[in-house]
Amino acid sequence: MPLIVQKYGGTSVGSTERIMAVAKKIIAAKSQGNDIVVVVSAMSGETNRLVNLAKEIAEPPNAREFDVLLATGEQVTISLLSMALTEQGCPARSYTGGQVSILTDNTHNKARILEINDQKIRNDLNQGKVVVVAGFQGVDADNNITTLGRGGSDTTAVALAAALKADECQIYTDVDGVYTTDPRVVPDARRLEQICFEEMLEMASLGSKVLQIRSVEFASKYNVPLRVLSSFEDGPGTLITMENNKMEKALISGIAFSRDEAKLTLVGVKDRPGIAAHILTPISEANVEVDMIIQNKGENNTTDFTFTVHRNDYTKALNILNDLKELETKEILGDDKIVKISLVGVGMRSHAGIATTMFRILADEGINIQMISTSEIKISVIINEKYLELGVRSLHTAFGLEEAQKPA
Amino acid sequence: MPLIVQKYGGTSVGSTERIMAVAKKIIAAKSQGNDIVVVVSAMSGETNRLVNLAKEIAEPPNAREFDVLLATGEQVTISLLSMALTEQGCPARSYTGGQVSILTDNTHNKARILEINDQKIRNDLNQGKVVVVAGFQGVDADNNITTLGRGGSDTTAVALAAALKADECQIYTDVDGVYTTDPRVVPDARRLEQICFEEMLEMASLGSKVLQIRSVEFASKYNVPLRVLSSFEDGPGTLITMENNKMEKALISGIAFSRDEAKLTLVGVKDRPGIAAHILTPISEANVEVDMIIQNKGENNTTDFTFTVHRNDYTKALNILNDLKELETKEILGDDKIVKISLVGVGMRSHAGIATTMFRILADEGINIQMISTSEIKISVIINEKYLELGVRSLHTAFGLEEAQKPA
Repeated sequence: MPLIVQKYGGTSVGSTERIMAVAKKIIAAKSQGNDIVVVVSAMSGETNRLVNLAKEIAEPPNAREFDVLLATGEQVTISLLSMALTEQGCPARSYTGGQVSILTDNTHNKARILEINDQKIRNDLNQGKVVVVAGFQGVDADNNITTLGRGGSDTTAVALAAALKADECQIYTDVDGVYTTDPRVVPDARRLEQICFEEMLEMASLGSKVLQIRSVEFASKYNVPLRVLSSFEDGPGTLITMENNKMEKALISGIAFSRDEAKLTLVGVKDRPGIAAHILTPISEANVEVDMIIQNKGENNTTDFTFTVHRNDYTKALNILNDLKELETKEILGDDKIVKISLVGVGMRSHAGIATTMFRILADEGINIQMISTSEIKISVIINEKYLELGVRSLHTAFGLEEAQKPA
Repeated sequence: MPLIVQKYGGTSVGSTERIMAVAKKIIAAKSQGNDIVVVVSAMSGETNRLVNLAKEIAEPPNAREFDVLLATGEQVTISLLSMALTEQGCPARSYTGGQVSILTDNTHNKARILEINDQKIRNDLNQGKVVVVAGFQGVDADNNITTLGRGGSDTTAVALAAALKADECQIYTDVDGVYTTDPRVVPDARRLEQICFEEMLEMASLGSKVLQIRSVEFASKYNVPLRVLSSFEDGPGTLITMENNKMEKALISGIAFSRDEAKLTLVGVKDRPGIAAHILTPISEANVEVDMIIQNKGENNTTDFTFTVHRNDYTKALNILNDLKELETKEILGDDKIVKISLVGVGMRSHAGIATTMFRILADEGINIQMISTSEIKISVIINEKYLELGVRSLHTAFGLEEAQKPA
């Protein structure tokens, strides 16, 4: 019998009414002849309520105890959902992370899953039960409660699917799949039937916030087919799998973009060995993440050094550069009115000239490219933020993304 | 080092502010040179919130899942209290019932404690930590979460005190001790310094709702000294222990009463063997608890049969009697305007004539006694409810209960 792991997020289980609707969806999937394991998050609002209670007492609260507190959120949901299932005639059984058990390391608040014991779940499935597991939580080797940090419930679902060798891991969210780009920017944006892990990772890291990167990495590592679908409407969603022949036909799968960009340029830095490290070490020591880096040869043995950071870190980074001693530079320039647009597609591997096409399309619209960065399956450009919509729409049309994927 | 188990109920931990105040009390007790283990209930209101969520889904909800749900209430409190303690510089560690572990049978919603593993708690105490344990909950042999039912947190505290051989189990409530009678009825009522388990059991079962009967039974069985005190003001409270020499000097320890009484009389029942069983079997089968029973010889080989029930069960019991076949009776009478007053004291064992004194005092006030029931350390009478206050006050004064206990 096929085994499916389903994961429902906080909004999907945000009220007892919604929990009962989720129970109906689960029963429907089971009645189609599947074994079902469900992973749930805390009811929307619940985690915030708990965080606020903790804040009233201590900031930051004791890390171990904070996990004990937060873990109650998912525990409430597993019990209510199991009640709803049994009430609707479907035998069900809930498990906390500790009960499964989902063994993690002991890094409270952002633990990593080490091992999952699937014995109880297997037994229950063999008895025809639906198994409901609390997402986001586990226990360490000493039976202390741990939580997995942001996006933890997705990770729990994927890890369970891997441990159980599930046929599919379905992530139910408030969107009905992964789109070629953000439909709020391009109304013609199309839901993708399928996308491969690498593309999804690029899409996710660039701001398509459908799935947490960590869970996609996990799914990719253990080759767990992931499907993103809507809790609120029926539909096939988007399947995320290993790259396969069918996929290679599409040049570009999607266009990701990020508005949270800022760049800093050191003009006329003396070009000597170790200068990049000299500039970037204090930046990374301040926990500022650097994304793109470009170094151009300037005049008189000097160089122009440019890098981008998250817009929230812009002022911090600028202050660090200004305080930097022994930095012989003409000028430090900054710009936090920039955005990043990226073409993503495994098709780039076998097709040359996509970058050229991209640059020409943007040039035709009069959009100046400030920085370029490429990887095997991605081309990113930095442009002025006012051209974001124009750039994304032009590229979406020019690469024919509004049309269904067809074999070439 | 003396070991004290402290238990704080829902009102005592009803807000983060109160939790921080409780943390201060704990630290004060620890700084006096005691090892401290704390048992807490869910924050007041929290259990109701959870019950209502369950009701929205199923009534009654699945018993196993209901326990999973309810157990989150205490889990929230243990984490917040441990945070408050560590924030105030006192090392602390929380444990759910499952983590301790508190092993129970598998009767969900009213499980019984079978065994407590004290190893983790001992280790923490040896490291100078305060240990905070979730009341009301445990796990069965298959690691399913169970709850202990009403008053469960008191039971957890006493069971832990017994397992750890604690020097004292302190139950913090919203009253500052056990009184000779209800101070709302007798303003002169006096807090008892000490009372013995048997007396406390009689007081508790008769409506002095300071402690749950089950926890007193447990404390008595394992000889755990219990102390009832206030969370909100300092004071010695009331110590509940084994009967000792000092106590025997007091004739009467207190006067309990209950307003929730009703009586039913079958007049002129044919007196034949098995008639009591014939009347009471359908009553108990309907889950109606019978308290006092009196059977008087009547005329012509008939008998008058009277018994009392909880006032809430009055109509139910009356209907059962009226439907009873083969019951040759002249008349069925009922009265739900009655109350019970009880004198409680181990001193009765060695002093005769207390019952006579009691009856005389009531007679002097013109109060008619309708039924009488006695045990080794208790005399109960049923009277018309309008005489409750008069009766209790007269007895309280006549037996000198407003004065401090003195050796005779």
